[in-house]
Amino acid sequence: MAKAGARQKNDALTRLASLIDQSRFALKAANAADIQRATAAGNDAAFVDRLTLSDRGINTMIEGVRQIIGLADPIGEVSHLRKQPSGISVGHMRVPLGVIGIIYESRPNVTIDAAALCIKAGNATVLRGGSEAIDSNKFLAGLIQQALSAAGLPEDGVQVVPTTDRQAVSAMITMPQYIDVIVPRGGKSLIERISQEAKVPVIKHLDGICHVYIDDEADVEKAIRIADNAKTQRYGTCNTMETLLIAGPVADQVLPKLIEIYRTKQVELRVCAETRNHLARLGLNQNGIIDATEEDWDTEYLAPILAVKTVDGLDGAMEHINAHGSKHTDAIVTENYSKAMRFLREVDSASVMVNASTRFADGFEYGLGAEIGISNDKIHARGPVGLEGLTTYKWIVLGQGEVRQ
Amino acid sequence: MAKAGARQKNDALTRLASLIDQSRFALKAANAADIQRATAAGNDAAFVDRLTLSDRGINTMIEGVRQIIGLADPIGEVSHLRKQPSGISVGHMRVPLGVIGIIYESRPNVTIDAAALCIKAGNATVLRGGSEAIDSNKFLAGLIQQALSAAGLPEDGVQVVPTTDRQAVSAMITMPQYIDVIVPRGGKSLIERISQEAKVPVIKHLDGICHVYIDDEADVEKAIRIADNAKTQRYGTCNTMETLLIAGPVADQVLPKLIEIYRTKQVELRVCAETRNHLARLGLNQNGIIDATEEDWDTEYLAPILAVKTVDGLDGAMEHINAHGSKHTDAIVTENYSKAMRFLREVDSASVMVNASTRFADGFEYGLGAEIGISNDKIHARGPVGLEGLTTYKWIVLGQGEVRQ
Repeated sequence: MAKAGARQKNDALTRLASLIDQSRFALKAANAADIQRATAAGNDAAFVDRLTLSDRGINTMIEGVRQIIGLADPIGEVSHLRKQPSGISVGHMRVPLGVIGIIYESRPNVTIDAAALCIKAGNATVLRGGSEAIDSNKFLAGLIQQALSAAGLPEDGVQVVPTTDRQAVSAMITMPQYIDVIVPRGGKSLIERISQEAKVPVIKHLDGICHVYIDDEADVEKAIRIADNAKTQRYGTCNTMETLLIAGPVADQVLPKLIEIYRTKQVELRVCAETRNHLARLGLNQNGIIDATEEDWDTEYLAPILAVKTVDGLDGAMEHINAHGSKHTDAIVTENYSKAMRFLREVDSASVMVNASTRFADGFEYGLGAEIGISNDKIHARGPVGLEGLTTYKWIVLGQGEVRQ
Repeated sequence: MAKAGARQKNDALTRLASLIDQSRFALKAANAADIQRATAAGNDAAFVDRLTLSDRGINTMIEGVRQIIGLADPIGEVSHLRKQPSGISVGHMRVPLGVIGIIYESRPNVTIDAAALCIKAGNATVLRGGSEAIDSNKFLAGLIQQALSAAGLPEDGVQVVPTTDRQAVSAMITMPQYIDVIVPRGGKSLIERISQEAKVPVIKHLDGICHVYIDDEADVEKAIRIADNAKTQRYGTCNTMETLLIAGPVADQVLPKLIEIYRTKQVELRVCAETRNHLARLGLNQNGIIDATEEDWDTEYLAPILAVKTVDGLDGAMEHINAHGSKHTDAIVTENYSKAMRFLREVDSASVMVNASTRFADGFEYGLGAEIGISNDKIHARGPVGLEGLTTYKWIVLGQGEVRQ
């Protein structure tokens, strides 16, 4: 897989997109078997929805593969080449990571998304999806292997673990001799269990407790627009704001309008005592607004619920974020240059933003073209992980017979 | 530590260099206590040599700190800033990793080297040196903390674990909530044990089974110069060549001269059957040349011993290297452009070289200024790890009130 050129990899992906399109009927039949078992086992509607491959979902899957075909091949790119005093030139060459293990929930679309990205990055891939999707995944694995083979690539360059045995996961994460990196996607408990047991490096995608801080020098109109969008544009995504921090001096200016917006959109507010005081002083309707507990500051709601806290100013905001955030994505709204720079530098999160919605923390919005997930880790790949996060570099040395003195 | 600017960090390092210089007498007294205990415990001369801080060793330590002062501060550097279709600008900012744990042998000079690099990279550091060096390390820790404090930095920004209790190591490597990365330096068994037990990401520095491959289209004069230097310039370093691979067609041209050089320098040769045939046909003196066993291809000698194997050509060489190498450093000597490019791309090692000695795989020679070690890992930092390997990035987003559509 590592040796394949861009054209060969794109040939395989083009073939894959056609095969999915041509095999809709058989794919939906395999998926129907999964759905039937999952329903009989009493899984809830949201679970079954994620498991289901509708025609629309299949189109999205095909579109995703086509987008990855359009991305530049990162492999073999040489950078930072510099001549050293000894005469040698030293630089970096981008290369595949090797074998990537992906462990994910019962969402068969991930099988194609992940395989396509890994193929483009020149990696071999071992996919372990949720056991409820086993028939869909085996069918998709067949298509992927057919596509690889047609392009002259090794058909076992992508493998789907064919059993639903949980021990397969334990095996995968403890084989550093065979697997170079594990990318788990799924619930927090799954990822924590994997991190705890793994002997293979893990690129973790944990929770997103994201903050927007409205500074006392914020442009009020921008602040309201961003605080609205960051919470309400989508509720279930990891880059959605979960806690809104407001500088005391600006609370009276932003609260009336924000309360109105959130009430209209049926967002439940959980507020600190000081925010409650502001509401009372402003004479605002406090119906349905409840008191926040300490636990709220550490909770990822993934729902139309928002914690609101009034803070002293920038230092209080950063202290709260560094203590309660999940190092995912945090934003400041301010017109003050120095405060913006301090926030960028001192908030220890994968993405830090000035005057923009946290919802932008996403591989597509960042220009990566596609993403395998959003990393909360600090080493190797941080934030949205695209093709480059699925690669590494080697040092290359170009000499003319130089030896060390 | 992360907030400190370049000047403040350099102030601390300048103070540290002076303090070491001024405290030679007391430092040597602390070191003498370590030496006495280590000698009484029956450690060998090489061990005691590594433990000893001579005046020359102290000068080198001071010089190392001064070199780190001279390096550019990587922290806060913004790169890849690009405007996206939504209007936001997205880029990377280089930031410290956080808290780095360094576990190393009884070599007190590492205490200063590692602390100085970590300070410059804006990290907090927990140092755990070999127990035999405890008095030296505690003394040096005192100097570091004095220097930090004088520069207005938190004095516990660098901490030396004050006990020789082995459980301290187990604790350090299983506390991902307190330590972001572990850098072990030392013997292979120590590093393997740490990798096996660690819950914190580890930047490993394992063995260097480095190869030079002399291609049949090599410039013979360059080949001989590089094969000589890669083996004999220093024997005990991880970037020293341990196996020489020779393409069959060129063996007769390079062997007579190389045998002469290695014999003069008293390098023991362990050769494959085909190499032996070449020697016989050339009528060369085979005194002292022994037959290689399978084990030789997997051995890091760190000594004046060299395994020699004749291979069919480039494919045979790369197959051997990928099977027996340690992903450290490997070089090809050839004048053929396409073969050079294939070697660079297809040999899966941290450093791959064309027409240069493997001995160049080193932070100073690569222009990093200093290194904490040479990584065999594939993720985060590969090959020589300098200041940049001790940092990570965050994504920064600069907006003007943009929200997600």
